[in-house]
Amino acid sequence: MNNKIYFTPGPSELYPTVPQHMQTALQQKIGSISHRSKQFQEIYAHAVSGLRQLLQLPDNYEVLFLASATEVWERAIQNNVEHESFHLVNGSFSERFYETAQELGRAAQKYEAPFGQGFDVNDIEVPETAELVALIQNETSSGASLPVSEINKFREKASPDALIYVDAVSSLPYPAFDFGKVDSVYVSVQKCFGLPAGLGVWLLNERCVAKAEALLGKGLSIGSYHSLPSLLSKAKVNQTVETPNVLDIYLLGQVVEDMNRKGAETIRQEADEKAAAIYAFLERSKTFSPAVESPEHRSRTTIVANTTVPASEINKWLAEFNMAVGSGYGKHKEGQIRIANFPAHSPEQVNKLVQKLEELFG
Amino acid sequence: MNNKIYFTPGPSELYPTVPQHMQTALQQKIGSISHRSKQFQEIYAHAVSGLRQLLQLPDNYEVLFLASATEVWERAIQNNVEHESFHLVNGSFSERFYETAQELGRAAQKYEAPFGQGFDVNDIEVPETAELVALIQNETSSGASLPVSEINKFREKASPDALIYVDAVSSLPYPAFDFGKVDSVYVSVQKCFGLPAGLGVWLLNERCVAKAEALLGKGLSIGSYHSLPSLLSKAKVNQTVETPNVLDIYLLGQVVEDMNRKGAETIRQEADEKAAAIYAFLERSKTFSPAVESPEHRSRTTIVANTTVPASEINKWLAEFNMAVGSGYGKHKEGQIRIANFPAHSPEQVNKLVQKLEELFG
Repeated sequence: MNNKIYFTPGPSELYPTVPQHMQTALQQKIGSISHRSKQFQEIYAHAVSGLRQLLQLPDNYEVLFLASATEVWERAIQNNVEHESFHLVNGSFSERFYETAQELGRAAQKYEAPFGQGFDVNDIEVPETAELVALIQNETSSGASLPVSEINKFREKASPDALIYVDAVSSLPYPAFDFGKVDSVYVSVQKCFGLPAGLGVWLLNERCVAKAEALLGKGLSIGSYHSLPSLLSKAKVNQTVETPNVLDIYLLGQVVEDMNRKGAETIRQEADEKAAAIYAFLERSKTFSPAVESPEHRSRTTIVANTTVPASEINKWLAEFNMAVGSGYGKHKEGQIRIANFPAHSPEQVNKLVQKLEELFG
Repeated sequence: MNNKIYFTPGPSELYPTVPQHMQTALQQKIGSISHRSKQFQEIYAHAVSGLRQLLQLPDNYEVLFLASATEVWERAIQNNVEHESFHLVNGSFSERFYETAQELGRAAQKYEAPFGQGFDVNDIEVPETAELVALIQNETSSGASLPVSEINKFREKASPDALIYVDAVSSLPYPAFDFGKVDSVYVSVQKCFGLPAGLGVWLLNERCVAKAEALLGKGLSIGSYHSLPSLLSKAKVNQTVETPNVLDIYLLGQVVEDMNRKGAETIRQEADEKAAAIYAFLERSKTFSPAVESPEHRSRTTIVANTTVPASEINKWLAEFNMAVGSGYGKHKEGQIRIANFPAHSPEQVNKLVQKLEELFG
């Protein structure tokens, strides 16, 4: 039996109801049903309608299931960029999206802020020629966050045809997006949804679809089985092109139903309160300090702290008390810790972590 | 509680030990561990070494985890074909690989046999210019199979540089391949491995890697995160590029260990015996007949029968006895049934199915 509480930034703690939903899945033999069956279509529709409710997604948005958010980067570039994309980069994951565009032969431009800093959006000029503008609402590597009000400024900054993409991999459903001001948002289920990894969710509007069709119409390759037209042809009948991670789609539907029962607003309020407790500790600690300087750019869901005690040491100590935090990302592996503050983490667990960190390290 | 036995051709019956491995996974919180942790690397290495033993895979082969076999088609073309691929097509899945090559802008050639027929390999000429030769060991849609001895003839038929790919999606570990005579074999875990869907396994040798590097060296795009160099850079340290379906990789390792305990030869022998019982029934039945005429081309793992009673009627009757078979594929939906004969299906279950089909339909 493993009783550790994982405050790692994803994979992380499973949502508390996941074990019981998994038991139901086993009893109902969800792992054995055909992905072309009516039963699967109902599971698929349940997950999609639950997400639509939780996120208040408008009708002009599609919900697509991919293997990972990493895959979304590739499909976004293939389907929505002929020549040029523009990326806000302030950490490893926003950098990776930018590199993906380059690897796929596009002229990718970036506007960079130092690792761990937010963006002063008023300073940013979006090139006229950018077909896709890649924003990062929550940079999992550095804990820097872009407020929704700042995201909403990009519609005016970008050319009218540009598609605004938002990485909310490790924050959704926390940010309440204005989906009229952006064109696509994507997320991974192993972060705030508290699910086993192996599923990415790609939300996109009709403008993204039209762009893919336009590229196809020009005779350009937009991929094969996961081109947007191919994905949509199956999504319309509540199916996927390939045999998908059926179990995760089932679990997503169940967890989202649980979240809807709790309410998005309650989830957000709890996240704010838990984040406030963590940041208050980081501010008073003599070992830790918030890695993101400006409070308005501090993530509420993946909280990063500088540490004078190496991250591996901290986790050695925490292991004694059945807890784990994430180490820093890349070159910050030992000099920072990352604390996931997801819906799966109860206020009691967060308090226990803060208390223990304070006791052990001050 | 669902007590149905699924003889559907995948997703299908889970391997009998999967529920207990899933309980262990929940107790050990496998869904929460980091995909960059030592614990994940051990899970990964365990699955790979188990597969190497089960399949008797030579050291010059790599084992890669993708999201699906459908993804393997795309990555194979991107990484291993500059201009031209050549496909043996005798059903819907072999046709789909051929179409994938076309969608990716390659000059794909095909040699076609009618749906449900095997190939007379001696008649087939492989174009000199084919860089990838796509063989299908087991066509899940039609139940036609290509014996390993016939597969082995293609090394001589193809140009020395051509890469021989084998679709064993719904048959591995049944066929005992001569891995020296082919270059790549791929499989989906929701078929003969009896696992929840959401993982494809791509086996390939150093010739496939060299070809990808050569294309990259020419300045061609071979994809992004799932290009072969990218996949291999992580596989070498028992990791994946993206956060993968960790739970399925864990379960795969456990099930393969169970299979190794039983032994590949025993699994094959059982498959032969169960297949013989099913085909003997189909031969004597007045409702069913084997869909594949020539006995040597009949699949041992996905057995397809013509039926004079519509497939949906058959499943209505079988449902009363907690059993289900697959309907026919595509336009054969009602005129054929497909019976999975996977390692998860015990001889007792197969006998019960045969008995019930005979009782009900003669």
